Amino acid sequence: MGVKLGILGLGTVGTGTVQLLLDKDGRDPLLQEIEIYRVGVRSLDKPRAVEFPLEVLTTDLESIVTDPAVDIVVEVMGGVDKARDLIKKAILAGKHIVTANKAVIARYGDEIFTLAQQVGVYVMLEAAVGGGIPIIQPLKQSLSVNRIHAVTGIVNGTTNYILTRMQTEGSSFDDVLADAQNLGYAEADPTTDVDGLDAADKIAILASIANDCRINLEDVYCEGIRQVSKTDIAYAEKLGFVIKLLAIAKRSAPNVPLSVRVHPTLVPKTHPLASISGVNNAILIEGDPIGQVMFFGPGAGAGATASAVSSDILNLVAALKTERASNQEFHQFKNEPQSQANLQNPLLTCRHKDYCQIVPVAELVTRFYARFLTKDQPGVIGKLGTCFGNHGVSLESVVQTGFQGELAEIVVVTHDVREGDFRSALTEINTLEAIDSIPSLLRVL
Amino acid sequence: MGVKLGILGLGTVGTGTVQLLLDKDGRDPLLQEIEIYRVGVRSLDKPRAVEFPLEVLTTDLESIVTDPAVDIVVEVMGGVDKARDLIKKAILAGKHIVTANKAVIARYGDEIFTLAQQVGVYVMLEAAVGGGIPIIQPLKQSLSVNRIHAVTGIVNGTTNYILTRMQTEGSSFDDVLADAQNLGYAEADPTTDVDGLDAADKIAILASIANDCRINLEDVYCEGIRQVSKTDIAYAEKLGFVIKLLAIAKRSAPNVPLSVRVHPTLVPKTHPLASISGVNNAILIEGDPIGQVMFFGPGAGAGATASAVSSDILNLVAALKTERASNQEFHQFKNEPQSQANLQNPLLTCRHKDYCQIVPVAELVTRFYARFLTKDQPGVIGKLGTCFGNHGVSLESVVQTGFQGELAEIVVVTHDVREGDFRSALTEINTLEAIDSIPSLLRVL
Repeated sequence: MGVKLGILGLGTVGTGTVQLLLDKDGRDPLLQEIEIYRVGVRSLDKPRAVEFPLEVLTTDLESIVTDPAVDIVVEVMGGVDKARDLIKKAILAGKHIVTANKAVIARYGDEIFTLAQQVGVYVMLEAAVGGGIPIIQPLKQSLSVNRIHAVTGIVNGTTNYILTRMQTEGSSFDDVLADAQNLGYAEADPTTDVDGLDAADKIAILASIANDCRINLEDVYCEGIRQVSKTDIAYAEKLGFVIKLLAIAKRSAPNVPLSVRVHPTLVPKTHPLASISGVNNAILIEGDPIGQVMFFGPGAGAGATASAVSSDILNLVAALKTERASNQEFHQFKNEPQSQANLQNPLLTCRHKDYCQIVPVAELVTRFYARFLTKDQPGVIGKLGTCFGNHGVSLESVVQTGFQGELAEIVVVTHDVREGDFRSALTEINTLEAIDSIPSLLRVL
Repeated sequence: MGVKLGILGLGTVGTGTVQLLLDKDGRDPLLQEIEIYRVGVRSLDKPRAVEFPLEVLTTDLESIVTDPAVDIVVEVMGGVDKARDLIKKAILAGKHIVTANKAVIARYGDEIFTLAQQVGVYVMLEAAVGGGIPIIQPLKQSLSVNRIHAVTGIVNGTTNYILTRMQTEGSSFDDVLADAQNLGYAEADPTTDVDGLDAADKIAILASIANDCRINLEDVYCEGIRQVSKTDIAYAEKLGFVIKLLAIAKRSAPNVPLSVRVHPTLVPKTHPLASISGVNNAILIEGDPIGQVMFFGPGAGAGATASAVSSDILNLVAALKTERASNQEFHQFKNEPQSQANLQNPLLTCRHKDYCQIVPVAELVTRFYARFLTKDQPGVIGKLGTCFGNHGVSLESVVQTGFQGELAEIVVVTHDVREGDFRSALTEINTLEAIDSIPSLLRVL
């Protein structure tokens, strides 16, 4: 029995996916059962790496999602509003969905999964996070017997590339960004990447799956890497850290609210994430009883993403093969209309219905790194220490690292503290006559 | 509908598994549907961490595998012959199997999978390789759309612990082994670990799944770490390498025979596997189009292994829930005996039926590291170079590293060469009057 795909979009990921699906030799034999039935594109005239018969290509994407012959709609067109609309129409038409669209899932996962549950179709999204790295399926199928305490990821290749080069070359953010744009590693408008928005979409999705609940994207605290200076990278290095843009979803204890956040972070050099360099991604999962497991690989690219999209398609084909064979015949015998809902594999569906409670950032408990510029007066360190003490902030180290012009530079690393307390201390410190400025403030893993 | 487990063995892994299964809060809700129905133990009198009603425990393991009420047999008893026998009896009685037994699967996978295909039951083995790391399921379900070129793993925690300590402390193998035995990281009889046999079992299983074929365990070349000296670790370090016991299944091109092997290997420090230290495991998969992905985590331990065993159970429960719901009713309607075979999810089964063709080790193409002790005569390096040249062995570097007593020590690193050619060159070199001995010979990744 063939399974018919309707593919929305034939850009980089779409092209990579159809190339993989058409080149079956040496891959899973189940690929034989897949037919690329319709492909929706913006223009029929554009020259393409893969040629299709005229009846396969169409610019009418709506006609694909409502075509009764289509079994699975593969959404690799990108964008938000139109993709969301087509995904919902496809679900209403009874199609299973494979999507690589982190932005749509992070924003509209609630309505999409609710609709999918009502209709009884699968929504697969392996490619939405971590490019080719299998992470969604392992979380849903291999690790769901664990209580997941923390998901900590380097999930944006562009920012990791920039930070890696700043680290190895001692260059500034602006210089490396400009070069990354020339080399094609960063977009002309780099906002989505460097301001952490892409990572926020991804950690919202991972947090949702790991904790079996929904996440309001607005609740995800998000801070990008524009403020990370080469000075801080150098000090971090001396203190035994590298600076990484981490996406974190963490519970400090079972059954307490979840903290979900993206921010540049000082990572101890001995930590498994510290050695992840360049455009690679890695996601560390911590749970009970498994301990720590990490998934590492290419976070983007046509081939890697095509692998993830195709594996979702293949898993649907395998599930449909099993379910449909019995299901259709069964309902024919019972002379009933077919309802797929109660025959779905619960480990492939998204079952969550409730929103997670999220810790406000002021309540976050973490270590901090802060760099101060102060007048070169005796007793400044004592004043800093007193202010921190007034707000219950316990310090791990205070080091006068040198001078910037006439100003003394002091680097402070705290123990675990409540972020609100730390911020209150900084407000008081800012009123001290001896303080010139606080150029950097970073969290420490 | 509850799914009834018959568990064989209540040692470390069995106890960890039942503890996880009984402590359901905060884990996958599907665990609610699992009933620990029978548990087979060696003695009823032994005090245990988990207490069961008298009717659950039994010393009659055969009665479990043939009990009509049992749906899934969980084999966590270890050993080979008895476990093999019980697994086969369970399959013949129509039970699905979850096993953590790498030794049985590596040796008797052919008969077990053939039987399972005939009867139409699943055999799940996530815990057999990499402890808690999800690797079997990702290979079967997430990565099978790729052509897998290479699986390269650190899959034995004991040897990685020993090599890590030899590296960081500059200690000898014998000293670290003795200490590891005292600390419980190595067995009193360490043969299975230090001679690479455990790693060979595991790479045979991984090679089989990654390449969708069967592997004759006798075809796996296997060399342990007893001969790795602190001298070689120190030289490797200077050359930019660490020494790891790697388990490798690799094809040099599509459709050529596979090389499957376990041996200590010089790994470049920049390679993702170089930083895997202590008892951790990591498995690097290389494929087209995904590139490199790596899975890292705890390779052993009650909790990690229990996570893998339980995830297999959960996946069976999910699959059975879907298949059985329709299947049983369907066959009741058709008034037919139930045949499960054609309703199985093809990505959960082991579909391979043929043996892989394996490259004989003499045909292996790899880089080598060799250390020579020679008389301190002029022209020795020239003679070595000539011998290698006679056999088509191209050298990357030849360095006289110093002296051991009156003998000069020379370290050679080759380019990629045919192992047979390299061995022929060594045979000729051994006849040279200037050569005292060849204390080390290691492959280079």
